[in-house]
Amino acid sequence: MDLRMRGNAKLKGKGKEGVSGLKGNCIVAQSGGPTAVINESLCGVIQEAQKHKEMEGIYGAKNGILGLLEEELIDLRKEKTSTINSLRTTPGAALGSCRYRLKSWSESRKDFEKIIASCRRYNLRYFFYIGGNDSMDTANKVDQAAKRMNYQLKVIGIPKTVDNDLVFTDHCPGFGSAAKYLATSVMETGRHLESLYDSETVIILETLGRNTGWLAGSCALAKRSEEDAPHLIYFPEIPFSLDKFIKDVKEVYRKIGGVFVVISEGLRDEKGNYVYEKKDGVSTDAFGHPELEGISSYLKEVIESRIKLKTRTIKPDICQQSAVHFASKVDMEEAYLVGREAVKSALEGKSGCMITIRREKGKVYKRKTSTAKLSLVANMEKRIPPGWINKKGNFVTGEFVEYARPLIQGEVAINIQKGLPYYPRLEKREILDKW
Amino acid sequence: MDLRMRGNAKLKGKGKEGVSGLKGNCIVAQSGGPTAVINESLCGVIQEAQKHKEMEGIYGAKNGILGLLEEELIDLRKEKTSTINSLRTTPGAALGSCRYRLKSWSESRKDFEKIIASCRRYNLRYFFYIGGNDSMDTANKVDQAAKRMNYQLKVIGIPKTVDNDLVFTDHCPGFGSAAKYLATSVMETGRHLESLYDSETVIILETLGRNTGWLAGSCALAKRSEEDAPHLIYFPEIPFSLDKFIKDVKEVYRKIGGVFVVISEGLRDEKGNYVYEKKDGVSTDAFGHPELEGISSYLKEVIESRIKLKTRTIKPDICQQSAVHFASKVDMEEAYLVGREAVKSALEGKSGCMITIRREKGKVYKRKTSTAKLSLVANMEKRIPPGWINKKGNFVTGEFVEYARPLIQGEVAINIQKGLPYYPRLEKREILDKW
Repeated sequence: MDLRMRGNAKLKGKGKEGVSGLKGNCIVAQSGGPTAVINESLCGVIQEAQKHKEMEGIYGAKNGILGLLEEELIDLRKEKTSTINSLRTTPGAALGSCRYRLKSWSESRKDFEKIIASCRRYNLRYFFYIGGNDSMDTANKVDQAAKRMNYQLKVIGIPKTVDNDLVFTDHCPGFGSAAKYLATSVMETGRHLESLYDSETVIILETLGRNTGWLAGSCALAKRSEEDAPHLIYFPEIPFSLDKFIKDVKEVYRKIGGVFVVISEGLRDEKGNYVYEKKDGVSTDAFGHPELEGISSYLKEVIESRIKLKTRTIKPDICQQSAVHFASKVDMEEAYLVGREAVKSALEGKSGCMITIRREKGKVYKRKTSTAKLSLVANMEKRIPPGWINKKGNFVTGEFVEYARPLIQGEVAINIQKGLPYYPRLEKREILDKW
Repeated sequence: MDLRMRGNAKLKGKGKEGVSGLKGNCIVAQSGGPTAVINESLCGVIQEAQKHKEMEGIYGAKNGILGLLEEELIDLRKEKTSTINSLRTTPGAALGSCRYRLKSWSESRKDFEKIIASCRRYNLRYFFYIGGNDSMDTANKVDQAAKRMNYQLKVIGIPKTVDNDLVFTDHCPGFGSAAKYLATSVMETGRHLESLYDSETVIILETLGRNTGWLAGSCALAKRSEEDAPHLIYFPEIPFSLDKFIKDVKEVYRKIGGVFVVISEGLRDEKGNYVYEKKDGVSTDAFGHPELEGISSYLKEVIESRIKLKTRTIKPDICQQSAVHFASKVDMEEAYLVGREAVKSALEGKSGCMITIRREKGKVYKRKTSTAKLSLVANMEKRIPPGWINKKGNFVTGEFVEYARPLIQGEVAINIQKGLPYYPRLEKREILDKW
């Protein structure tokens, strides 16, 4: 395939720089694990970009940065307005996502050259990357590569992660909806368990969260009285001791007659080793993160063998990242907002930064957006502040609940067809050269 | 505690038999694993019973049959109308449930004598038991014990099981809501997986269903196009072969680039043995059913070691039995209906039977209720008809989908407070003798 042919006649704009700023095409991509609201951010970018004449063409990169490496671009102006709008309440990454890792300039030089060559060929001048910490690292490296290669490109990161662990932002779009879904599930399964304490006494619900316990902690929102689930929550931030865990479970059992435990997948012992970690060839991802399958089953076995209480496990896994059917309206709105703000920031001439959300002081929840340098955000992780976990290390404090509560507010109307959600796909998903 | 004292002054009615039938108190109980709609049936019983003067007192047995064995009765007339109404959309069994097994007359004679003694003491003349096949066995035995002991008692079973495996009824209340929740989850997680086929290629979602594949099959409702999840479904009804499974997964992977597999927890090999079954002292329930923890993790390991495709597992477990937040309206209505019909049947003089749902012929879904003998229903299991599973044994046919589709229709408005469902409990949960 002649790559030069692909980028010719069909592209709008010629990279002029008007008084109002850089002119050219923009590209948006999604990276890492999708969230329930990741497409809100995509739509925020598209719909804001459509308002500005500097943004001539609006393209989507297929599967994150791979779309630029493999020159698989989608012309988003060809999509119907109604399709774009209905994507806002659709799970998964509408453009496709990836977990591709860009290494250092010297190690990944070929990749950087390919990426900037694609930008030149398609006259891409605005680059919006929606993702979490690994993705912000990618965006940061693209920004640096463009500068190094004297290619004028505005790179803006758009925060997205259910893990809620990006630094410099009060919280991350995606977290609120995952928290709402998890808290609701804990409420429902807790009530179920309560009916059957005599025969099924312990539940272990395993949330995502390899290094941080934001999602596990958010399950506390379900609790309105002492008898309500959850009764115990364990965090990667606090060294996990099996003996203490068993003691905690026994104590709750004596008091309440049943025990609802929430654990974060990434529990570690005092030495910092995962409490349960499979080691085989397939079980690490592209970023070298270890596979954590099985922690809840392991703890179930420990409880059943040590204290003979029948235990069930629940592993919602990617349900918590994709449950649009009960998403948080606040989260949806904020995901859209950060997409729009990314476009505005780029047009103001900013580059190499990520949009952040700041919470204003006061009893009523208010936020505004700001930006933080990608180089400071990339690969960093925000953990739960120590004061937001109780002294026993087995529940959150009121501060955590006050922090999380505003983020799960409001419900979202979704399109239902024949009893099930209608989740559209982009209609013209052919890559650019096919048109 | 003097048991005789407990049943004295506070009971209404004196067991008179009017022209219109038997007069006395009625008792309702919930048994087995709750469903999202189990309290609809409870409310159906209560609200219908309130209309009839033959039903003098309306009591709930705490934790199923245990409430009669241990004389823990709740006076349901003391609950506010608003509480009863709001229970209709509350998960878990509001009265508590149990998995207690009554054996044969000779083996469990003491239990039967206690139960009938309780009935006499509290002048209970109508006994409504909400549950699945094991619970219908309990109801049947209570009916027989009453006859044997010359105690006039009308016993009616009210069908409830997400497993959808009761015989003589077109379907079971609880199934539709579980099916709607599972199909929605498959739709959402399927779209998530699709975004990341490059790095996470296979999903195994494990549904409940020890002996029947109704829940696994219902996930097919999520599929609207070839690329849509699920791609493969495996049933307890069809002997499972690991080699064939791997072949199926490889075939879908080649065609689509990713594979969404749904499995029922109770997969068996050609000899009828569970494909994966843990054997230890704690892992059977009161009915001797084996514990099936781990089948999805096991198959994940098989895929990763044999064909090196990264695999994730999802185990919604009791989420599928309790997800009121996205329940089926049709299912809710039918659960209420069978509760009401139970009362009407008892007043017509019926006993020893279960309410059934019949589907009327025609393109538009219509149903009516009928009854079946408990002795024929108890401990039987309805499996998926062979013609409703495809020849390869790895998906359902159109007949299955046509059957299941009407049962998931309609959404239910739930009470939301501060971003999460409001699920009340009975207010006066003290047992009878305390008042």
